[in-house]
Amino acid sequence: MAVYTDVPDEELDVFLSAYDLGSVLSLKGIAEGVENSNYLLRMTGGTFILTLYEKRVAAEDLPFFLGLMDHLATRGIACPTPVKGRDGKTLRALRGRPAALVTFLDGLSVRKPRTEHCAALGTAIASLHDAARDFAGQRANALGPSSFRGLAGACGGEADRVAPGLAREIETEIAALEQAWPKTLPQGVIHADLFPDNVFFIQSRVSGLIDFYFACNDFLAYDLMICLNSWCFEEGGQLNITKARALIEGYRAKRPLSSAELAALPVLARGAALRFLLTRLYDWLKPAEGALVKPKNPLEYLIKLRFHRHVTGPSAYGL
Amino acid sequence: MAVYTDVPDEELDVFLSAYDLGSVLSLKGIAEGVENSNYLLRMTGGTFILTLYEKRVAAEDLPFFLGLMDHLATRGIACPTPVKGRDGKTLRALRGRPAALVTFLDGLSVRKPRTEHCAALGTAIASLHDAARDFAGQRANALGPSSFRGLAGACGGEADRVAPGLAREIETEIAALEQAWPKTLPQGVIHADLFPDNVFFIQSRVSGLIDFYFACNDFLAYDLMICLNSWCFEEGGQLNITKARALIEGYRAKRPLSSAELAALPVLARGAALRFLLTRLYDWLKPAEGALVKPKNPLEYLIKLRFHRHVTGPSAYGL
Repeated sequence: MAVYTDVPDEELDVFLSAYDLGSVLSLKGIAEGVENSNYLLRMTGGTFILTLYEKRVAAEDLPFFLGLMDHLATRGIACPTPVKGRDGKTLRALRGRPAALVTFLDGLSVRKPRTEHCAALGTAIASLHDAARDFAGQRANALGPSSFRGLAGACGGEADRVAPGLAREIETEIAALEQAWPKTLPQGVIHADLFPDNVFFIQSRVSGLIDFYFACNDFLAYDLMICLNSWCFEEGGQLNITKARALIEGYRAKRPLSSAELAALPVLARGAALRFLLTRLYDWLKPAEGALVKPKNPLEYLIKLRFHRHVTGPSAYGL
Repeated sequence: MAVYTDVPDEELDVFLSAYDLGSVLSLKGIAEGVENSNYLLRMTGGTFILTLYEKRVAAEDLPFFLGLMDHLATRGIACPTPVKGRDGKTLRALRGRPAALVTFLDGLSVRKPRTEHCAALGTAIASLHDAARDFAGQRANALGPSSFRGLAGACGGEADRVAPGLAREIETEIAALEQAWPKTLPQGVIHADLFPDNVFFIQSRVSGLIDFYFACNDFLAYDLMICLNSWCFEEGGQLNITKARALIEGYRAKRPLSSAELAALPVLARGAALRFLLTRLYDWLKPAEGALVKPKNPLEYLIKLRFHRHVTGPSAYGL
């Protein structure tokens, strides 16, 4: 549901004249990615995704995102590879917006991840972290804990419209996390948004990781807890400890977690839950004008946040 | 902008088990067709469009539409071919909706058709009419002149909200068309909705005609006038007589028009303009709940209607 910008055939021709990809066979607007306009482009030279970056992605961050995908793809990570034009560039303009072509990846996202999907995902995250180690780009996490007070404030005190007492609960949680947030865990480039719709599988093998537009530098284990929240809870709000264990053990099989990281998992999970609670709350209270995407229910993340708040150690995650 | 119904991977697997098309490579919701949910489905056995029919398409009409596409495709018309399952059937259920797979067609729709596109389209329409001659299915035109009073009534007297005097102008036009509408022109199966987004081209060759969900039995020349309205007017509202001539001559090169048909072109063009004026007016005044498609401006068709009302004969179309 995410095509915002229409691409006329004649403007497409001008854009594609910068590449050596043969002639156009078809262009279909696809319902993928919430933030941008995406098209599936079939050329005689292959199949690609054409992305027009809409205003929610900061133009100055695009070299980081495209550079990262290029870096990861050359190290064997199954992610979209930005395609270079004859001028060597991956980023140019189309319809007045920054635009790029990336390679198309086969695979399906899974609606109800099973344990084997969680295990494969864990390993894929560790591989991504490994492959990004020598990436030179740097981008601060714009949605990390230091952003939480601003996000809560942007909701304009209306949180209680969604659940009575929510504003106060968020306030208390922010204060607690400011105290408890780790200072010295292993850092690196994280994806930061690896929800099930951003991971493609062929059977239970990960065939693609997409949508790197929240990637940033942060604690590596935080990335894992974002996934624990989005992959390992059942619809009723209970953590599936078998899936949680599979995810984390899948990760550790490729990159061991230090004892400091293990001890920090509950607080990282709380921070990850609060981040999505806050952004969903904001989108719920202040839906974007003309948005074609229905805001997601923030309360799903309140339930997850409360779960992690009562966790005493990593054993709650099956470790 | 037209994916309404989500297809979970596990339900897709069940659906596809009825076919011999190999295994799934990818499924992307595409922004094509206003009435249905459409997905581009890549299988090891080929690329297809998966359509879930939403409530605006009457389920009892689907055998006509799918039967017609099958009939036309076997006669060499570049239209989607419904794919048969191992049971020989093309229509089955997915997510509680009628659903079908059709072949994928290459090509791009043109935003600003040029004269050569209009000429190629004219010939393609005549070929479609020819190929459908021995099609046994029958479907009345639910949006023909006999529907106009009902459509106008459904707008609930609110037409003047869109343009002062519009309700009265529509009323007068309906009465005039009831008098002037032809009774005995050559009939057959028409597409009835061949707007530029339903026609694919590779360069200036027609590579695909899609979206047969308004097809019905009606005057053949009426189909041509629907296209004249949607392909041959400039953005300012003027008829481009060069394009009109190219369209009609392209048609006549393949199927001659009788003198009765030629004489009837202006009144058919008025009827075609009024049909889209009325349905757009209705969608404008009564937008469908949850619709993701912005209603189109009805006044574009009022301008076309007025043009044809003052036409004295087919010479106005360059003949």
